[in-house]
Amino acid sequence: MLKIPRTIFTRPLDQELGFGKNVTTVGRMMNPDGTFNVERQYLNWWDNTYFHLVTMSWKYFFLLVFISYLVINLLFALLYMVAGMDQFSGLQEQDFWSNLSFAFYFSTQTLTTVGYGYISPTGHLASTLASLESFVGLLAFALISGLLYGRFSRPTAKIVFSDNMLVSPYREGMGLMFRMGNARKSELIETEVEMILAMNQQEAEGATIRKFYGLKLEIAKISFFSLSWTVVHDLSKESPLWGLTKADLEDANAEVLVLVKGTDEANQQIVHARRSYVAEEMVWNARFSPIISRKSNGVPHVLMRQIGAFRLLEQV
Amino acid sequence: MLKIPRTIFTRPLDQELGFGKNVTTVGRMMNPDGTFNVERQYLNWWDNTYFHLVTMSWKYFFLLVFISYLVINLLFALLYMVAGMDQFSGLQEQDFWSNLSFAFYFSTQTLTTVGYGYISPTGHLASTLASLESFVGLLAFALISGLLYGRFSRPTAKIVFSDNMLVSPYREGMGLMFRMGNARKSELIETEVEMILAMNQQEAEGATIRKFYGLKLEIAKISFFSLSWTVVHDLSKESPLWGLTKADLEDANAEVLVLVKGTDEANQQIVHARRSYVAEEMVWNARFSPIISRKSNGVPHVLMRQIGAFRLLEQV
Amino acid sequence: MLKIPRTIFTRPLDQELGFGKNVTTVGRMMNPDGTFNVERQYLNWWDNTYFHLVTMSWKYFFLLVFISYLVINLLFALLYMVAGMDQFSGLQEQDFWSNLSFAFYFSTQTLTTVGYGYISPTGHLASTLASLESFVGLLAFALISGLLYGRFSRPTAKIVFSDNMLVSPYREGMGLMFRMGNARKSELIETEVEMILAMNQQEAEGATIRKFYGLKLEIAKISFFSLSWTVVHDLSKESPLWGLTKADLEDANAEVLVLVKGTDEANQQIVHARRSYVAEEMVWNARFSPIISRKSNGVPHVLMRQIGAFRLLEQV
Amino acid sequence: MLKIPRTIFTRPLDQELGFGKNVTTVGRMMNPDGTFNVERQYLNWWDNTYFHLVTMSWKYFFLLVFISYLVINLLFALLYMVAGMDQFSGLQEQDFWSNLSFAFYFSTQTLTTVGYGYISPTGHLASTLASLESFVGLLAFALISGLLYGRFSRPTAKIVFSDNMLVSPYREGMGLMFRMGNARKSELIETEVEMILAMNQQEAEGATIRKFYGLKLEIAKISFFSLSWTVVHDLSKESPLWGLTKADLEDANAEVLVLVKGTDEANQQIVHARRSYVAEEMVWNARFSPIISRKSNGVPHVLMRQIGAFRLLEQV
Repeated sequence: MLKIPRTIFTRPLDQELGFGKNVTTVGRMMNPDGTFNVERQYLNWWDNTYFHLVTMSWKYFFLLVFISYLVINLLFALLYMVAGMDQFSGLQEQDFWSNLSFAFYFSTQTLTTVGYGYISPTGHLASTLASLESFVGLLAFALISGLLYGRFSRPTAKIVFSDNMLVSPYREGMGLMFRMGNARKSELIETEVEMILAMNQQEAEGATIRKFYGLKLEIAKISFFSLSWTVVHDLSKESPLWGLTKADLEDANAEVLVLVKGTDEANQQIVHARRSYVAEEMVWNARFSPIISRKSNGVPHVLMRQIGAFRLLEQV
Repeated sequence: MLKIPRTIFTRPLDQELGFGKNVTTVGRMMNPDGTFNVERQYLNWWDNTYFHLVTMSWKYFFLLVFISYLVINLLFALLYMVAGMDQFSGLQEQDFWSNLSFAFYFSTQTLTTVGYGYISPTGHLASTLASLESFVGLLAFALISGLLYGRFSRPTAKIVFSDNMLVSPYREGMGLMFRMGNARKSELIETEVEMILAMNQQEAEGATIRKFYGLKLEIAKISFFSLSWTVVHDLSKESPLWGLTKADLEDANAEVLVLVKGTDEANQQIVHARRSYVAEEMVWNARFSPIISRKSNGVPHVLMRQIGAFRLLEQV
Repeated sequence: MLKIPRTIFTRPLDQELGFGKNVTTVGRMMNPDGTFNVERQYLNWWDNTYFHLVTMSWKYFFLLVFISYLVINLLFALLYMVAGMDQFSGLQEQDFWSNLSFAFYFSTQTLTTVGYGYISPTGHLASTLASLESFVGLLAFALISGLLYGRFSRPTAKIVFSDNMLVSPYREGMGLMFRMGNARKSELIETEVEMILAMNQQEAEGATIRKFYGLKLEIAKISFFSLSWTVVHDLSKESPLWGLTKADLEDANAEVLVLVKGTDEANQQIVHARRSYVAEEMVWNARFSPIISRKSNGVPHVLMRQIGAFRLLEQV
Repeated sequence: MLKIPRTIFTRPLDQELGFGKNVTTVGRMMNPDGTFNVERQYLNWWDNTYFHLVTMSWKYFFLLVFISYLVINLLFALLYMVAGMDQFSGLQEQDFWSNLSFAFYFSTQTLTTVGYGYISPTGHLASTLASLESFVGLLAFALISGLLYGRFSRPTAKIVFSDNMLVSPYREGMGLMFRMGNARKSELIETEVEMILAMNQQEAEGATIRKFYGLKLEIAKISFFSLSWTVVHDLSKESPLWGLTKADLEDANAEVLVLVKGTDEANQQIVHARRSYVAEEMVWNARFSPIISRKSNGVPHVLMRQIGAFRLLEQV
């Protein structure tokens, strides 16, 4: 039987998160890559075609384009063979594989509009097919131009997050912190960050409910995100995490959502990045290793690859 | 004679709707697809060409492109025939339809720049026409590239709305509610919703006026619109709908406008969706059927196709 | 000698206009098309190339592209002639104009990449030139694709303004009003309007200064700009125009700037429109003719072409 | 040993700048072109490819495209030679350089899809290579189309700044001012400017710390940035610069950051410009030369090239 836990925001967040009563007390709510851990049944498979085509990796995108190129050419090659080799000047009837090869070459010459002409459609059927294929070719490459630009112009920040959240000495006490860096050359301006804690709590009447807390940050907005930024929540008495241990958080299935928002200066688009840290990804009593060194001319230099590097402190 | 009703906002809305004294007391103000039920006489037919070309369905768009391809080729084929078959190498004078066919094939080979060359323009007139056609071809396909990208990049949410508004049990009393879902894979963030009620009311002096009310919502903004969202207006004593029956609403020609606004995370564009429900589309004493199930791993799963599913409750 | 008038804002505007002490007491500040009546000497002529290419009329754009096509082809044709006709198969040395014609045809076949091949470059020089020209051709058409999309996607509202501002009966007194309409099919949402009055005033010490007033509007923002909108400033005692006649305004070289801002729903871009009315364009004691009629089904219909139509009232 | 200075904001700035404890007391923080004087080690070299391709100068962009064109063709030419000249009709085995030349010409004819056909691939290997090359060609030009549009549509203001900040007579005392102009034809609307002073200061305990001050401006926002704008900070008693001399500022390694933000009306995109002035770039007791003249018709004319022109005043 499906048990849906009640959800309570103990500290008023800016707005409803949008998960209502559907939040789960088991499993993580957000995947490490920032996508939500939900599944939607879509109305039509093509509603998300453009989304997939612009978000898939470049490797798969080019592979998909290349395979489509082969498939379309093969299809037209077969149609040309059905039309018959006698519909073409420059081709003579040979064995099946030779015919297919030459029909395929002719097809690629038509689809890409290279059209050398040493093979030419002379019959009506072949000519009509070729008229269609060159049209399809131009449409397809217009489509690819559009998709390529869609991929280029998509507002994406490349923010790298530390793999772990640390509980480190901070001021007189301790702080919960993670580190992130801007791995793009373009500045991120007016960058804001938000931390939301979700955890199970036992209620008086014994039921387990999932509570959400907005965690107060030392600095929540900066003008220029040029270097690395260690975002800190002070584990003071005001914190909902005050006095809790790593074991407590694991028992409570705690998860901290990190929401980052900034403006990419290169294209002036607002970009978002998200990360979630579950209790298992938090390290107690550790400190991030320095990654900003200073060159002889005083220019700060950031070692972005070591954004997550930390060292454990001796237990106090 | 045209009777224009007076318009009164009894609860201050954020701003004027923009229909002034032109609102009608008969017929719906907004079509179910979110367009307004008004007609504008445009200044020039071409002012909306781009708008139509990027908003028409993909089916019609490709059909239009294909028909244009045929028409342009036919036009040039006729021009080549006028120029004469002797202007071409590789062609000989035959009957009209053969001539037209080959002129058409040559035209497609020129327009798409495939240019096999087994038919070639050798005369001055044919060469000049071909120079023009290949230029037209490249411009046309540049245009199509632009349009395709314009279509792709248009900020459009795919929000599915329930077909009906329900009057369902809510807290101690009843609530007016509809349900919507995000049918795209990309998250909609910071999604806001507004409900505006328009209905005819009898004034003291007997005139019928059309009044507008902003309806207060239980939750009007969520951070992430990942699942479905049932938007609820509490039919409490504070509601302008307090105590009214379905028949009352039908008599008053009531219409509830729903305005949704959010940010599509895939391209960071603000998107809008609108829906209107007239009194006939409201169902009394019914409840939306659950569409979120939970998989064995605790991940919520939304059945988007059933967004409008509801069951009638027994009359109390 | 250049006399620069002092500028005074008597009613605090939201912000400085940006003309500082440079406002003029003669001539209009804004042209009727919304551009400012200023001249800038630019640093480099190419800084505004893209701006011109996307803002010029379609007629001139296509003319420019066509002329460029002719010029580039002519240039390459001359280069091919310099290389010599013996560098080509399919061509023989003839008279100058025949040579030029065939070199031009070959050039178009290369630039558009149609490449029939009945004329082919066989010598090294011709082949190298052709390699270059086909490369130039593809770059040029990639450029045109980019420009075409730049033209399409430019955020432009098509707001039509009445040619005149009217002083019409309004409430118990009179109002200064103009009318505008949305001549595009896409809705303009959250549309705001601002009216700023500039006029010369005699100061106590006799100097003429140019004063700016923000004029209070009856309604300054609407949710949907679907129909026409008559924007009204009440000529009440609070108005800086209270008691002034048309002659007074002409003497004071009065100019009313109209600033409109809205969101085009088709592409969700913020669009701006501006208009200015000088005293000579104001008509006293007139009323705009109705342009919204109601069809039999109650749907309002707007006659956009008559946005500026008005009739004079009998003098009271 | 690396000494990191403490950072203190004595007057609350709107938000953290984002340099935290990493600000340096030596060297400039911002380069004159507005980029920050920091270095980041990137994760992957290709993360910034698009950024570089759209921000590099047009000269280098076209050079890069042209070199790529040569390299790709050379590569395919070598592959065709490996396949053998006997794989082609229209080619005969000659010396190495002739072979390479013709293979190169054939390659360009294939990559650009011009495909004359006087050289044609007849063998299987050559045909397959040609099928691949024409595909690569179309992809490459689709890519270039996308990049060209990416370059065109990038939101960039062309704001020219004076080379120096001046300390000029202002009201009863002096003001720190610079001048900037909009060197584009499109208006910049709602333009805001911010000035931040960074300088070293001796603390009571003898340590040198870097302090940041937001400098109050006479006018910080204008509606239309049509002409030139002289931005002024009043050197009154409230200013952190009150009483300091040029020598003091140089000793304190003072740097004034200028942040400009506006909306480019041509494409409605928000654009940013930055400039920094170090103490050495400040000129005491000078005044900007007038650059706005008035034509006979009263239209102001701005001499943008002389934005930085000033004359020294006699020492008082």
